[in-house]
Amino acid sequence: MRCLVIYAHLNPFSFNHAVKQEVERLLEEMGHEVKVSDLYEMDFKAVLKPEDLNLLYSGSAAADVKVEQEKVTWAERLILVYPIWWTGFPAILKGYIDRVFSYGFAYAIDERGWVQPLKGRKALLITTHGQPESVYHDRMYTSLRDTQDVGVFQFCGIEAQHVFFPGIMGSSDELRQGYLNSLRDALAEL
Amino acid sequence: MRCLVIYAHLNPFSFNHAVKQEVERLLEEMGHEVKVSDLYEMDFKAVLKPEDLNLLYSGSAAADVKVEQEKVTWAERLILVYPIWWTGFPAILKGYIDRVFSYGFAYAIDERGWVQPLKGRKALLITTHGQPESVYHDRMYTSLRDTQDVGVFQFCGIEAQHVFFPGIMGSSDELRQGYLNSLRDALAEL
Ligand SMILES: Cc1cc2nc3c(=O)[nH]c(=O)nc-3n(C[C@H](O)[C@H](O)[C@H](O)COP(=O)(O)O)c2cc1C
Ligand SMILES: Cc1cc2nc3c(=O)[nH]c(=O)nc-3n(C[C@H](O)[C@H](O)[C@H](O)COP(=O)(O)O)c2cc1C
Repeated sequence: MRCLVIYAHLNPFSFNHAVKQEVERLLEEMGHEVKVSDLYEMDFKAVLKPEDLNLLYSGSAAADVKVEQEKVTWAERLILVYPIWWTGFPAILKGYIDRVFSYGFAYAIDERGWVQPLKGRKALLITTHGQPESVYHDRMYTSLRDTQDVGVFQFCGIEAQHVFFPGIMGSSDELRQGYLNSLRDALAEL
Repeated sequence: MRCLVIYAHLNPFSFNHAVKQEVERLLEEMGHEVKVSDLYEMDFKAVLKPEDLNLLYSGSAAADVKVEQEKVTWAERLILVYPIWWTGFPAILKGYIDRVFSYGFAYAIDERGWVQPLKGRKALLITTHGQPESVYHDRMYTSLRDTQDVGVFQFCGIEAQHVFFPGIMGSSDELRQGYLNSLRDALAEL
């Protein structure tokens, strides 16, 4: 399968980086084709500008956006690896969504209603957060799924799964190793 | 009252801009002191960088962040004006939160638990979105409140109110004028 890993963390010594490395290793071991968009390494421009709304008018996207749209089109599976910051996406990843998943590319409207050009793809969201599971409750997980899985991916017809790794703040090596070990099963279901 | 308006839209001809202008006008008419952070006009850098985590270590923030932290400290009321993009904040505003509401400034931990240096302030979130109210349902509004009002502001001890202006896509002048007219009451309760 063609897999695009979208990764958003600033620190190569972070747990997120370890997750990203393990995801890449496992996908290759499983025989998938893998591309990686490491947003911090790419210094991806997060802020939507007037030219990003061009597709509505002229059909042309900014060069950096076009490269990413080609990767998304190529991919059968999107695997996102990122930390929860302020109960949401880090800004660099939010900006990737704002700019790359543009009108005409990721969704459109015609006389019959919503059009979903990316339909059929699947997304796996792998996110870490500092707070323990007990603090986040079911309700906060539901809200994260609504605003991320549903509000972004399912809106585009992309089926989304979400794996949460809570309690990273002050976590033990055992907990983190357990999370890394669980990735094989999560990816096997892609 | 000292009011900081935080505004995130790229287009001076947008409905959001009209909302921002009316908010400013009304606050001044009501006799409040007003400062405005127009994030697009300021070209605010949205992406959290290693130096933004310095406060944890050295106590010093980046110059642009420090200016905003001084405004937030000065303010008794925060009024945010922005569109809902992908069921969340526009990236430039998400990045403002990621960077400005940093550890040590907006929250901290000491031996007794969470510390909330900004406690006592109130926030009013005024947001527009394209889809009609009927599409968003109670559940999506709950999820937006959870991830924005609760996950960001209430986490910092800032009481948050949220005013939604749905159905902007293809809306009538009457609808938009009605929204603008409703701002006086919303701001009177600040
Ligand atoms: C700007 C910022 C915002 C954060 N917001 C949250 C949050 O809303 N909820 C939470 O549980 N953890 C939050 N955290 C903690 C991170 O999610 C946590 O540091 C990360 O998941 C740990 O993985 P890492 O070592 O790869 O950074 C935040 C951290 C930062 C830097
Ligand atoms: C990148 C982008 C993402 C958007 N996502 C949503 C959304 O998730 N839900 C929604 O109802 N409207 C969405 N919209 C529509 C905007 O919310 C709408 O254009 C705005 O509220 C209208 O106000 P304006 O004229 O000030 O831009 C989106 C628009 C853009 C440009």
